[in-house]
Amino acid sequence: MANRQKPLIFISNDDGVWAPGIKILVDVAKLYGEVIVVAPDRPQSGQGHAVTIKSPIRMNKVDAFEGVESWECTGTPADSVKLAKDTILKGRKVDLILSGINHGSNASINIIYSGTMSAAMEGALEGINSIGFSLDDFSLKADFSAAAYYADIIIRKMLDNKNGEPVLLNVNIPNLRKEDIKGIKICRQARGKWVEEFSESIDPRGVPYYWLTGKFENLEKDATDTDLWALENGYVSVVPSCFDLTRHNIINKLDFLI
Amino acid sequence: MANRQKPLIFISNDDGVWAPGIKILVDVAKLYGEVIVVAPDRPQSGQGHAVTIKSPIRMNKVDAFEGVESWECTGTPADSVKLAKDTILKGRKVDLILSGINHGSNASINIIYSGTMSAAMEGALEGINSIGFSLDDFSLKADFSAAAYYADIIIRKMLDNKNGEPVLLNVNIPNLRKEDIKGIKICRQARGKWVEEFSESIDPRGVPYYWLTGKFENLEKDATDTDLWALENGYVSVVPSCFDLTRHNIINKLDFLI
Repeated sequence: MANRQKPLIFISNDDGVWAPGIKILVDVAKLYGEVIVVAPDRPQSGQGHAVTIKSPIRMNKVDAFEGVESWECTGTPADSVKLAKDTILKGRKVDLILSGINHGSNASINIIYSGTMSAAMEGALEGINSIGFSLDDFSLKADFSAAAYYADIIIRKMLDNKNGEPVLLNVNIPNLRKEDIKGIKICRQARGKWVEEFSESIDPRGVPYYWLTGKFENLEKDATDTDLWALENGYVSVVPSCFDLTRHNIINKLDFLI
Repeated sequence: MANRQKPLIFISNDDGVWAPGIKILVDVAKLYGEVIVVAPDRPQSGQGHAVTIKSPIRMNKVDAFEGVESWECTGTPADSVKLAKDTILKGRKVDLILSGINHGSNASINIIYSGTMSAAMEGALEGINSIGFSLDDFSLKADFSAAAYYADIIIRKMLDNKNGEPVLLNVNIPNLRKEDIKGIKICRQARGKWVEEFSESIDPRGVPYYWLTGKFENLEKDATDTDLWALENGYVSVVPSCFDLTRHNIINKLDFLI
């Protein structure tokens, strides 16, 4: 480490700067570099890639993590990364962007609803290696020890791998004890969807209202190369992800529209 | 049309049920089928794929369009489609889902920030042909006549094409007079990004706040097969889009993480 500067690692999340999951990630990242945190000031689950256009955003410096510069932001996860880039990180080279550890899986189609992954994607858009971590347990009392162990491995290997082009990784950790996890699997995003049921209730004025609920369905149960298969079979899933949403293989089949 | 039932066309948007753009789309769609509208009750630009998890959603029947069942919804664009599917449309076969016409382009990376495209994507997740339309003009007084003309062509051709697998289309219309538009181009999503600048101000209590601003940058100016090229050169751009975000071509290059 003599003549080598410490890597700069930026961290955000979507459960808010005070959530247990981000503390785990900060503790791991501190082992490998200088850490700066900008994260929402309150939980932002399901925010997708929302950005705040019509109202101003504020940032407050907070003392959330020992020895780590940290800020809470009134915006979304994507706002937090954009604002950090333009203010606190301005002109500095960031080596790695981390988001999470999310309370709940972001495997399969959940990536499109995920604030955690939107923060990581904002990093990737800047050409920086970016990783979203999620634990397959929604509980605020979730046990993050296995997640911390695997986050450590993946962060270290990503910092050591200096030759590849920048990547965006969607990492999901199964809700198992460390000794019961079989290892890491590189996989693709499974086809899956939410089968929604809205629970209808009637308010005191007699007006109906609806709460989103539902269960998740794996639409390719037999495939063994997907993130859902990996999680269900005791592996940490790693999906290299992108922000090019073009369905390239049907571009030549749409001439009937011209 | 004798023994043939009218197609059922569902419409949403992200500028709200009272925006001029959705009225244009309803007027065109009415020519070809039964139309049902559920759209947000207020503008939701930049909402990305946000869904409402922690509060209830309401729907109110409104008289927004002559002869068309229409509802305003207190949720996001994605909520509007999900809720419609589970309530008003329950058990009915929907032939086509439309979203827009958005006030402002959703070409290139803007698809990930776009409420318009998230509504269309919710339709595609259900295996229904879905199209998001956007006009490259943010003004509320935008001239939608060229957009209406091309929406008509694309809607008609999509309803006639019964054999293909379901597609999700991101359609952007340049801000030109109809007679100056050169036609429709099937293209891919251009690599582009927002170069943000946050405008910092100080509130009356001396506390800083930030407004998101910035300009959009086309990162592949020389490519002629992208949506940005098409728009800049007078074509309506049509990008077949998907919700599989896997970067398939690097799955085999990440073994160093295992």
